[in-house]
Amino acid sequence: MSTLATLTNHQIRLAARPVGMPTRANWQSTTEAVAEPAQGGVLLKTLALSLDPAMRGWMNEGKSYIPPVGIGEVMRAGGVGQVIASKNPGFAVGDYVAAGFGIQEYLTLAEADFKRSGLVKIDLNVGTLTQWLNVLGMPGMTGYFGLMDVGQPKAGETVVVSGAAGAVGQTVGQMAKIKGCRVVGIAGGQAKCDWVVKELGFDACIDYKAGPSAVKEGLKQHCPAGVDIYFDNVGGEILDTVLTRINRGARIIICGAISQYNNTTAVQGPKNYLSLLVNRARMEGIVVFDYADRYHLAVAEMAGYLKDGRMKSKEDIVKGLDTFPEALIKLFTGENFGKLVLQVAEA
Amino acid sequence: MSTLATLTNHQIRLAARPVGMPTRANWQSTTEAVAEPAQGGVLLKTLALSLDPAMRGWMNEGKSYIPPVGIGEVMRAGGVGQVIASKNPGFAVGDYVAAGFGIQEYLTLAEADFKRSGLVKIDLNVGTLTQWLNVLGMPGMTGYFGLMDVGQPKAGETVVVSGAAGAVGQTVGQMAKIKGCRVVGIAGGQAKCDWVVKELGFDACIDYKAGPSAVKEGLKQHCPAGVDIYFDNVGGEILDTVLTRINRGARIIICGAISQYNNTTAVQGPKNYLSLLVNRARMEGIVVFDYADRYHLAVAEMAGYLKDGRMKSKEDIVKGLDTFPEALIKLFTGENFGKLVLQVAEA
Repeated sequence: MSTLATLTNHQIRLAARPVGMPTRANWQSTTEAVAEPAQGGVLLKTLALSLDPAMRGWMNEGKSYIPPVGIGEVMRAGGVGQVIASKNPGFAVGDYVAAGFGIQEYLTLAEADFKRSGLVKIDLNVGTLTQWLNVLGMPGMTGYFGLMDVGQPKAGETVVVSGAAGAVGQTVGQMAKIKGCRVVGIAGGQAKCDWVVKELGFDACIDYKAGPSAVKEGLKQHCPAGVDIYFDNVGGEILDTVLTRINRGARIIICGAISQYNNTTAVQGPKNYLSLLVNRARMEGIVVFDYADRYHLAVAEMAGYLKDGRMKSKEDIVKGLDTFPEALIKLFTGENFGKLVLQVAEA
Repeated sequence: MSTLATLTNHQIRLAARPVGMPTRANWQSTTEAVAEPAQGGVLLKTLALSLDPAMRGWMNEGKSYIPPVGIGEVMRAGGVGQVIASKNPGFAVGDYVAAGFGIQEYLTLAEADFKRSGLVKIDLNVGTLTQWLNVLGMPGMTGYFGLMDVGQPKAGETVVVSGAAGAVGQTVGQMAKIKGCRVVGIAGGQAKCDWVVKELGFDACIDYKAGPSAVKEGLKQHCPAGVDIYFDNVGGEILDTVLTRINRGARIIICGAISQYNNTTAVQGPKNYLSLLVNRARMEGIVVFDYADRYHLAVAEMAGYLKDGRMKSKEDIVKGLDTFPEALIKLFTGENFGKLVLQVAEA
């Protein structure tokens, strides 16, 4: 290993708030010397970063569930990496960790910031590095607690999930299958649909790109008993269409609205929301951080399913810190296939 | 009393489905002879009918929580009246009852239809005839179970209710006060606002007609700790504005959307629905019929509050069966002040 003094940290910072889809002009590349950790602190090397739809929201000004990324700040991102210098007895050089790395090659963390950064050791015997960003990471936790706590699935119910091949969607669908539900995905393109059915075991998957009434017709065909739970990652027209097919007492989990994040006009509200009244149904939001004290339980359960083959995962790995601006866009055009990961260095 | 043979039943039937606001052209007046009750049946004389926003929905074709009124059928309406002939030992001439009378002067009910029609005896020592259409009737039950079961208010929380001076709103607000909440109404015009504050004891009331930002500014002023429960009777812009002020874990009860019922274009979906995500909040529909087996409990509780003065009621009484078409419109223009009742005959 090179001595710390010779290490340069490449970073990507938010240069300007985007209007609509982000472009290169919204980002700024910077370099700075890597700082030695203070007493109690650690120096981490970034190995892989999680690229998530929620990032688009963090780029906007205004009140949300967490503050926006400030102009000039390193872009916020969760990731996995390795301890390369430690002045803390709890962490040894070589330990693998997950933390809020940000889009950069190194992170020097003071002990006081461990908690805020979500620093935890991860065990590569439990899951691979990229699985720790996927089913065992934030997307997996989001899918697990959104489905289980907000959705409360019962065996025999019909669960529909949009963004089915994405990070959250694959966890939701597989967990719902394990809990005995009928599971219908919605995804863009035949390849993704084939994968969630053939590899993940969903009962069916609707290709929303197959035509203007593909979702409507697909729901009629594949949900003959209606929809009991809809896990919504996309919003927009798809949410409105599912609302016309829900059952009495249905639960709609609002996890995101990726179809609306780059709007330059107002978000499209669900014009069929009165279906909630007719069907005595519920639409409820979820933010994963609320479940932090139970992450370990979900990780333990799903790691077991990964081991025994009842659960699979797929990551779409893009390489190189500098590809971040273009890689992020893949989420909004639906080009990623599986959980989108930015690999920054070799493990 | 005249003999049955000489009685003529005046009725108002649905002649055509309205587009937008209903007009006289949507209705047809008919008369027919009053039928003698069969063995086990009763003949009822209508005294007063409940006019409700939900009626507008029953006039539309299409699936809802109950079937639409058919073209040529007597318009559906709940009401109160008196038994004037009985071939059933459970009902004596002179008994006061509530039932699904329809917009007509008499109703002959076969025993097999008692349940479907919701026939029950009512006690005028518990509440007045018109209170049995208001706080002790369907609107009161809707407000009670919507607030208590779906909203689950806790003392100290802030409850906002739209249509505050209406039948459902007055029950919701007074129940929330009794349960120790801060209550802010939204109503049209200073007179209604003054009444809910001065007579019903709401903490504040916002006149949504006072200006384009009246609701936004009013919520800022009167809900300094945000909104924990919003009981929505109106939908549209007001729902969207309240969504910007909800607290973490807020509950929004979707009871109706009177602002949208006469739309000739699509319903306006709540474009701020992602506030549910940010705030881990819930939007849930209620249909009162689901609580039928517990109506008697709510009636007993609220009759007590009426007796001890903790609860008041206000009915807006319009006279004469033939005024029905114009009376109904008052609900949608907001002209009614209190629960709208059509008095058909003197008690």
